[in-house]
Amino acid sequence: MFRNQYDTDVTVWSPEGRLLQVEYAMESVKQGSACVGLRSSNYVVIGALKRSVNEMSSHQKKIMEIDSHMGIAIAGLTADARSLAKWMRNECLNHKYVYGESMPSKRLCDDLADRHQRTTQTYVRRPYGVGLLVGAYDEATGPHLYQTCPSGNVYEYFATSIGARSQSAKTYLEKHYEGFDNTEKDELIMHALRALSGCVQGDGELNKDNGSIAVVGKDQKFILIENDELSVYLDKLDVEGGNGEGEGEGGNDGDAMEES
Amino acid sequence: MFRNQYDTDVTVWSPEGRLLQVEYAMESVKQGSACVGLRSSNYVVIGALKRSVNEMSSHQKKIMEIDSHMGIAIAGLTADARSLAKWMRNECLNHKYVYGESMPSKRLCDDLADRHQRTTQTYVRRPYGVGLLVGAYDEATGPHLYQTCPSGNVYEYFATSIGARSQSAKTYLEKHYEGFDNTEKDELIMHALRALSGCVQGDGELNKDNGSIAVVGKDQKFILIENDELSVYLDKLDVEGGNGEGEGEGGNDGDAMEES
Amino acid sequence: MFRNQYDTDVTVWSPEGRLLQVEYAMESVKQGSACVGLRSSNYVVIGALKRSVNEMSSHQKKIMEIDSHMGIAIAGLTADARSLAKWMRNECLNHKYVYGESMPSKRLCDDLADRHQRTTQTYVRRPYGVGLLVGAYDEATGPHLYQTCPSGNVYEYFATSIGARSQSAKTYLEKHYEGFDNTEKDELIMHALRALSGCVQGDGELNKDNGSIAVVGKDQKFILIENDELSVYLDKLDVEGGNGEGEGEGGNDGDAMEES
Amino acid sequence: MFRNQYDTDVTVWSPEGRLLQVEYAMESVKQGSACVGLRSSNYVVIGALKRSVNEMSSHQKKIMEIDSHMGIAIAGLTADARSLAKWMRNECLNHKYVYGESMPSKRLCDDLADRHQRTTQTYVRRPYGVGLLVGAYDEATGPHLYQTCPSGNVYEYFATSIGARSQSAKTYLEKHYEGFDNTEKDELIMHALRALSGCVQGDGELNKDNGSIAVVGKDQKFILIENDELSVYLDKLDVEGGNGEGEGEGGNDGDAMEES
Amino acid sequence: MFRNQYDTDVTVWSPEGRLLQVEYAMESVKQGSACVGLRSSNYVVIGALKRSVNEMSSHQKKIMEIDSHMGIAIAGLTADARSLAKWMRNECLNHKYVYGESMPSKRLCDDLADRHQRTTQTYVRRPYGVGLLVGAYDEATGPHLYQTCPSGNVYEYFATSIGARSQSAKTYLEKHYEGFDNTEKDELIMHALRALSGCVQGDGELNKDNGSIAVVGKDQKFILIENDELSVYLDKLDVEGGNGEGEGEGGNDGDAMEES
Amino acid sequence: MFRNQYDTDVTVWSPEGRLLQVEYAMESVKQGSACVGLRSSNYVVIGALKRSVNEMSSHQKKIMEIDSHMGIAIAGLTADARSLAKWMRNECLNHKYVYGESMPSKRLCDDLADRHQRTTQTYVRRPYGVGLLVGAYDEATGPHLYQTCPSGNVYEYFATSIGARSQSAKTYLEKHYEGFDNTEKDELIMHALRALSGCVQGDGELNKDNGSIAVVGKDQKFILIENDELSVYLDKLDVEGGNGEGEGEGGNDGDAMEES
Amino acid sequence: MFRNQYDTDVTVWSPEGRLLQVEYAMESVKQGSACVGLRSSNYVVIGALKRSVNEMSSHQKKIMEIDSHMGIAIAGLTADARSLAKWMRNECLNHKYVYGESMPSKRLCDDLADRHQRTTQTYVRRPYGVGLLVGAYDEATGPHLYQTCPSGNVYEYFATSIGARSQSAKTYLEKHYEGFDNTEKDELIMHALRALSGCVQGDGELNKDNGSIAVVGKDQKFILIENDELSVYLDKLDVEGGNGEGEGEGGNDGDAMEES
Repeated sequence: MFRNQYDTDVTVWSPEGRLLQVEYAMESVKQGSACVGLRSSNYVVIGALKRSVNEMSSHQKKIMEIDSHMGIAIAGLTADARSLAKWMRNECLNHKYVYGESMPSKRLCDDLADRHQRTTQTYVRRPYGVGLLVGAYDEATGPHLYQTCPSGNVYEYFATSIGARSQSAKTYLEKHYEGFDNTEKDELIMHALRALSGCVQGDGELNKDNGSIAVVGKDQKFILIENDELSVYLDKLDVEGGNGEGEGEGGNDGDAMEES
Repeated sequence: MFRNQYDTDVTVWSPEGRLLQVEYAMESVKQGSACVGLRSSNYVVIGALKRSVNEMSSHQKKIMEIDSHMGIAIAGLTADARSLAKWMRNECLNHKYVYGESMPSKRLCDDLADRHQRTTQTYVRRPYGVGLLVGAYDEATGPHLYQTCPSGNVYEYFATSIGARSQSAKTYLEKHYEGFDNTEKDELIMHALRALSGCVQGDGELNKDNGSIAVVGKDQKFILIENDELSVYLDKLDVEGGNGEGEGEGGNDGDAMEES
Repeated sequence: MFRNQYDTDVTVWSPEGRLLQVEYAMESVKQGSACVGLRSSNYVVIGALKRSVNEMSSHQKKIMEIDSHMGIAIAGLTADARSLAKWMRNECLNHKYVYGESMPSKRLCDDLADRHQRTTQTYVRRPYGVGLLVGAYDEATGPHLYQTCPSGNVYEYFATSIGARSQSAKTYLEKHYEGFDNTEKDELIMHALRALSGCVQGDGELNKDNGSIAVVGKDQKFILIENDELSVYLDKLDVEGGNGEGEGEGGNDGDAMEES
Repeated sequence: MFRNQYDTDVTVWSPEGRLLQVEYAMESVKQGSACVGLRSSNYVVIGALKRSVNEMSSHQKKIMEIDSHMGIAIAGLTADARSLAKWMRNECLNHKYVYGESMPSKRLCDDLADRHQRTTQTYVRRPYGVGLLVGAYDEATGPHLYQTCPSGNVYEYFATSIGARSQSAKTYLEKHYEGFDNTEKDELIMHALRALSGCVQGDGELNKDNGSIAVVGKDQKFILIENDELSVYLDKLDVEGGNGEGEGEGGNDGDAMEES
Repeated sequence: MFRNQYDTDVTVWSPEGRLLQVEYAMESVKQGSACVGLRSSNYVVIGALKRSVNEMSSHQKKIMEIDSHMGIAIAGLTADARSLAKWMRNECLNHKYVYGESMPSKRLCDDLADRHQRTTQTYVRRPYGVGLLVGAYDEATGPHLYQTCPSGNVYEYFATSIGARSQSAKTYLEKHYEGFDNTEKDELIMHALRALSGCVQGDGELNKDNGSIAVVGKDQKFILIENDELSVYLDKLDVEGGNGEGEGEGGNDGDAMEES
Repeated sequence: MFRNQYDTDVTVWSPEGRLLQVEYAMESVKQGSACVGLRSSNYVVIGALKRSVNEMSSHQKKIMEIDSHMGIAIAGLTADARSLAKWMRNECLNHKYVYGESMPSKRLCDDLADRHQRTTQTYVRRPYGVGLLVGAYDEATGPHLYQTCPSGNVYEYFATSIGARSQSAKTYLEKHYEGFDNTEKDELIMHALRALSGCVQGDGELNKDNGSIAVVGKDQKFILIENDELSVYLDKLDVEGGNGEGEGEGGNDGDAMEES
Repeated sequence: MFRNQYDTDVTVWSPEGRLLQVEYAMESVKQGSACVGLRSSNYVVIGALKRSVNEMSSHQKKIMEIDSHMGIAIAGLTADARSLAKWMRNECLNHKYVYGESMPSKRLCDDLADRHQRTTQTYVRRPYGVGLLVGAYDEATGPHLYQTCPSGNVYEYFATSIGARSQSAKTYLEKHYEGFDNTEKDELIMHALRALSGCVQGDGELNKDNGSIAVVGKDQKFILIENDELSVYLDKLDVEGGNGEGEGEGGNDGDAMEES
């Protein structure tokens, strides 16, 4: 009840040394539909569940290409993500123009995190309400998987998942990630789909409409695998019996703020 | 009661990770009179119910031409829509001047959505109180139907409806949209009218005064069909017996803020 | 009681999707003394009731010339109206200087409405507290009658009335406006006076001191008809017995904020 | 009690469509000591009661020359008035420099009113707390008497009075103003003094120390008549027995904010 | 209790038309130690009581030279006064540089009062918390004594006093000021000391440490008379028995905000 | 309960002369995982506990290189630290470019402290939520260990520790720091590890994954010792039996704001 | 309880004419550790008690050199003091560069006080939370001792003390300051140490670690006497038995905001 004196302004510290507005913004990431990311020594795969506003709409894009060596999967407010993606694309273009080579993913993610951090230190703008999984393959350092947060933090992962019901995917990934290192691209995709299939909400299952996968890696420019191209992999998943295992802890579809 | 501590400032997150002011702005779209949009493989049709302030006024414009290949139907605050339409027309003019060709609708809608998004992240301006259905025919990619929201989201649809009593139209469209693909222009207009007729409020019915249709498509510049030109189609609708089926769940005509 | 959390800031949405400060500003229009406007196919007539602060002052101007083809009648805060009129005159002068012809009334009214709209979207300025009836004759498109609102809406009418007790005038106009189309200028003026006479407050009646009429039309530059010139028409009205029929529902003369 | 939610910010509308801060500012005019203004066809006379802070101070100036054809009498905050007078003098100087002739009083008063209006529409500055009676003689249009208000309104009068106990002067002026038209300058001054004498507070009477008169007119540059020059007229007033008739409804001398 | 809704912001009017923050600022003048000012036809004398923070400090300056023809005595916040004095000195220097002669005191005091007025109309700065007695000798118009207030008012006096216990000095001055006109410089100084001696707080008396006198006049550049030079005059005062007559209505020495 | 009137704005003093928002920001340092710093006459060693978000992520960097002669260990918000580190690196680069030599650490720390101080004096930005241990070797003055605080204070230490459970490390260091002066690099590292091992939370112990050490000194450019390189030292620690002695007073792992 | 309506904003006057935020800022000076200052006709000595954060840190600097003829001792927030000292050094450098001679201390202290005053008149920055004793020797006017306050006041003293328990030092100085005038440098230092020794908190006594003395004067550039150099004087003090006489009224060491 009294706590709220410290939680309506992003520039106000609570007596416990917390920035409550930043923590609230991080809640919006937890309500977005799930994304997963994982990498081997040569590839990064990112996957996401697309939400359909209704059956007449195309599904919402959850994975966006940033450059030919980098893409993102998003959980949280789509509008915030689109605005950030636009900025990231521009940074990549500028870097390529100036230096004649692709922007290193570490550097872009650090700049992106600073962009987040600034919104947490001034009252002019609210913190962004979106988390990003950034998958990139740098010529010099190989595949990378980063996660950025509304707080301005950035983490590097071997494999991870964010968004609603992402715990299910995390559990799968923790069990298997140690074996990913020399995995082939197609098997890595299968791992992504298996992790993702546990995050589907309600009675639904992962299918070619709500699933979305992207790969980037050695000699592999960023590609998006959706719809019929995805079916090939989903068929394998069905054969395994690994789809639809989500136990349905109540979704939040039709969410007013249209998180993705 | 305590919730309102988070709902009077657009830059304040609620503890649940929501932006309540943005959600409130989206309410104003639900109170505007209904619009529908649908497309075949060659055409987009947008339709809208016009509200008359009183019998001596001309009906309020609900459909506006943006360029010869694009138009919008609006639900929500007319003044906000007019201001956005003005900006969209300028963007189209500038693009044509610089590149010598029409602005791609996807690009304009993304920029428009960013314009919305910015109002949700700073305290300087309130979120716009209007939703738009954008119908466009791009030389390269054919017909498109987009919907934009106060939250900064943008969706592509095969067919959809927004505004008061739009659920009635959505139900009609969901039943029929799968057959729209090769439909001729005139039949597509009839679908729009049938969908729209269910959204008329009170005991009224769709007529040449309150109805408004626009078409754009292959070899078809944006045209507005109203009044007598509309009667031709309405006559067919009457023959079908498909008009006036709205059950009248209480309108909000004479609404103080003049939503359209 | 709880409602007021959303009604003291123009940039704050209420949970119902309303902008209460804009609605309150529109109240000030309802408290100004009445104005009427009506048009035939060749002329527009605007009329207004002038309030006298006391007998020693000249009556307050309620009708202002904007250009030789356009004038306005105002209801609400006079100071706001004067500031807007000044801006409109400048726009007309600039347009004539740049294009060598009179500014189209539709364009000016749209720009004026945008000027209103901007005050509803930022906290820097309050919404204007005045409604305008704009009567204009465009060389290309003939006579027009527009109404602008604090909300940024603009309507075109065949005939309408705003301000205190304007319902009486509206009732008269609704009964007769369908016959206005080919009416001569003098008869149109008589309609304006008849409509206006019902809006006089208390026991008073329309006379050459409190009445004010303006005409603009085909081969007719904007002229103001007041005082003795008005008497000619008022005499006819008295002969008809059509003056003084207002039933006096309590005026608000001597209003502290001097609305006009 | 609940009203105050709308009355501490000049940019906030009350639910009744009023700007309460502007109304409060107008109260300060009512607390200033009285001023009167009146005109014949050739002259304008303005008069004012000066307050003495104590016997050792010179009386406070209540009438200020703006230009050789114009002067003002003030009621309300002296500091605000002095700041406005400075601006008016500059406007007159600039006009004379640019156009080679005196600034028309109507134009200056309209600009002055706009200056007031702007303070009522933005939160940056408070409304001015002073009312002005402007007496001017324009070469082209003869004598004028204007009154400006904190609300941004401006009125033209034949005769009027503002400030504390001004009702007494108004009553006198209403009785006599119809005969002012061809009155000579000296008789017009006597009318001003008779009107003013009723506004003296407490048991005091109008004398050469607290009275102040100014005249401007045809072939008469602005002159201030005070002290011994005023005695000549006051002697005539005493002979009439027309001084000291004020019934003393309790003054507010020694007012903390030093209104004039 | 409810009053405070209008008294924390300098730009907010109370319902009675008062600016309470300005009135509060004027309280700080009443708490400063006393100053007196008086003039003859050839000289102005200003005097002040200096407060000593403790015995080891030099007494605080209460009289400051602005130019060779002008000085000030201050009551209220010393820091505000010093900042204003700095500005006044610059104005005098600039005037002398541009026009080759001393700045007229009336003009400087009007500009100074405007500087005060601006702080009362905007929320950016608080009103100054200091009152000034300005003593000046203008070549053209002789000696002047002005008083400025936080409200932006400026008064001219023959003699006056401000600050704590100033009523005692005012009473003395009112009794004698009519005879000051042809008084010699030394006798004028004696009047100042007699007036000042009544303002000493507690059991103290006026002495060469707490007293401070300045004179400026015809053929007399601004001089400060303190310490031993002051003793000559104080000795005469003691002979008269005119010192130490203050009845001690409780001082406010050691005041937290260090008013002077 | 009433205290909170002074504790939500960084520019507001409490009646006790405290800036509560700054004190709250300093709480966030206490919640970061522990860092230690210590120096001999030739070397500075800084050490830190890294937190792992989960097993699939790389541990969060807690020690960052600023220049070849300087590095920092951080406790508090990582995003704030990264933003400060970026600024520090730029300062070092600029100094080297302009003066041709490394930036003196004292000067950089003073500038850094001023950067902190500014956020405590203006409402524009919140205070930083991070504390830094700066270890540097200046060519001219030898090794230095500084600590900076959100308050803008900077301290030089022989040895110290900040962050969660840092009291344990401080106790160790106080017991031994007097003997550090001539200690060799390797022994200094052992001291750092022994101090750090007491800060490990829960049942965990210091290992090559959560430990991080950096050294800089005479003829020793800044090097980071982690993972296998660290194992060499940790093995020695185990032999000593000096690891895992932390008693586990309840950690705050998984902290929402991701302090480091 | 109601008082707090006036005490959270530095630009708000209380009804009693006080600026409570400025008074609160002055509290922070009272909580800093003590400083003393005193002068003879040729020298100024300033002394201060240094606080140690803990035994491993060097003591905090309390005396800073500004120029070769000037230094300061500080009580209050160290971060604020460091920021002011930086500014003072720059002013001195600029003055020397422009005029070729040392900046007069009076002028610098007046400018410094204005810098303080500005923070008390605008809401942009909080008042500084530090008091300064400025000791300087001007070639032209000899030794000076100034004290500046958060309120913007500046005082000149023969001898004084500020900070926690400074009353003890003041009592000593008041007893002896009248004999300081021809005292030699070393004896003046002894007076400073004797005054300071009474301000030591708890059971501690003045020693070479917590004491700090600086001298500047005729033919004596600013020097700091600390540690072993100070021991020579402290030995004399011990011989006198004049150390450790503080009665220990409870210190506030380890103060959260790190006052100095």
